[in-house]
Amino acid sequence: MQMVNVLLFDGFETLDAFGPVELLGRLSSHYSMVFYSLDGGAVESAHKVEVNTRPLSEMAPGGVLLIPGGMGTRKLALNEVFLAELKRAAEQSAYILCVCTGSALLAASGLLDGRAATSNKRAFEWASSFGRGVKWQKSARWVVDGNIYTSSGVSAGMDMALGFVAAVNGLAVAEESARGAEYIWNSDKDNDPFALL
Amino acid sequence: MQMVNVLLFDGFETLDAFGPVELLGRLSSHYSMVFYSLDGGAVESAHKVEVNTRPLSEMAPGGVLLIPGGMGTRKLALNEVFLAELKRAAEQSAYILCVCTGSALLAASGLLDGRAATSNKRAFEWASSFGRGVKWQKSARWVVDGNIYTSSGVSAGMDMALGFVAAVNGLAVAEESARGAEYIWNSDKDNDPFALL
Repeated sequence: MQMVNVLLFDGFETLDAFGPVELLGRLSSHYSMVFYSLDGGAVESAHKVEVNTRPLSEMAPGGVLLIPGGMGTRKLALNEVFLAELKRAAEQSAYILCVCTGSALLAASGLLDGRAATSNKRAFEWASSFGRGVKWQKSARWVVDGNIYTSSGVSAGMDMALGFVAAVNGLAVAEESARGAEYIWNSDKDNDPFALL
Repeated sequence: MQMVNVLLFDGFETLDAFGPVELLGRLSSHYSMVFYSLDGGAVESAHKVEVNTRPLSEMAPGGVLLIPGGMGTRKLALNEVFLAELKRAAEQSAYILCVCTGSALLAASGLLDGRAATSNKRAFEWASSFGRGVKWQKSARWVVDGNIYTSSGVSAGMDMALGFVAAVNGLAVAEESARGAEYIWNSDKDNDPFALL
C-alpha cells in the first residue's frame, strides 16, 4: 500500500487535488490518501471547499506527494518557511506529482532545477520564472523526469495521475481506474490540446 | 449570482462532487458554492477527504442542488429522514444535478417518478430499482428532463455540468470554463463510451 500525501493550502484549485485523489483513491488496494497543509487544520479551496488536514510535519516518508496549483500558490511561492517544508517533504517522497501551478511551488523550492517540467498554460510565464535551468515544456499534457511528474492545467492532472499509475502499477490498473470512473483518459502525455503555440 | 448547493454525506464519491464544483465554481461571476450535509459538520468522502459542511436545513431556496453518488448512497437511499429532507431541498431548488448514483437518492425521494434519467453503469441495476416509472437510460453521458440533470458515473458529472452551463448561460461560457480548466469536454450527452450494451 502506497500513501498519497496531498498537500493543500488556502486557495488550492479544487480539481487539481481531487481529480487525482479520485483516480488514485479508487485503487484502494494500491493507494491510500492523507491530506496535509503546512500547519494542519481547515484549509479552503478556490471554490470554497473547506478540508480538514494534518500538519505537514507529521507526513511519513516514502509516499507519493501530490501538489495542486491554484491562486494560493502566488503567495506561497514567495514564502520561505513553506518552501523549506515543501522541499523537506518532497525529498522524503518516493514520487512527486505536481498539477497546474503546483510545479511553480516545486520549482521555487529548487527541486526542479535542471529538470523537465510543465505547468498551467494561463500562468506559464509566472510559473516558469521559478527555478534554475528548468526545462519548461510549453506543449505537454504532462511531463515525467525521474520521480517527478508535472502536468498542465487542472484537468491534465487526472491524465497524469493515470499515466503515473500506468508506469508504476501497469497499464491495466490505470485503465481499470479510468473505466470505473467512466473517465475518458487522454493517455498520451504529448497530446496537449491546450498547448501554447 | 446563482448559488450551487452541494449536498455531501459520508462515503460520497470525491470527483462526483468536486468535478462539477471546479467547472461551475471557476465561473465566479455566475456561480457560488456552498456545502451542506444532513446535519452539518465534517463528512468524509470515499477517498478520505474530510469536508466541513452546513446543515441542510440552512439551505436557501432557488439554487442549483448538486447531489453526488458514491457508496454512501447505499444506506441513504433507505434513510427516510434523509430522503424527506432531500425531497424538500430539491423541491425548493431551481435546478437539480445528480452525478452517478446521486440519481438513486433522488429516485428514492420520489422526485424522478415518470422522468428520464441515468446513473452509474456499475450500479445501474441497483440505482434503477428506485422510483416509479423512471425512464432509466442505459446509454447516455447525461440526461436532461426539465430542471433535472442526471449523469453517468463519476467523470460524466463534469461533462454534464458544462452541458448545464451551456443550456443556462450559453455555450461560450461553458467553453470558457472547459478551456480555463484545460478540460477536454465531451459535449455530446448522447456520446457514452461506457454505455451498457
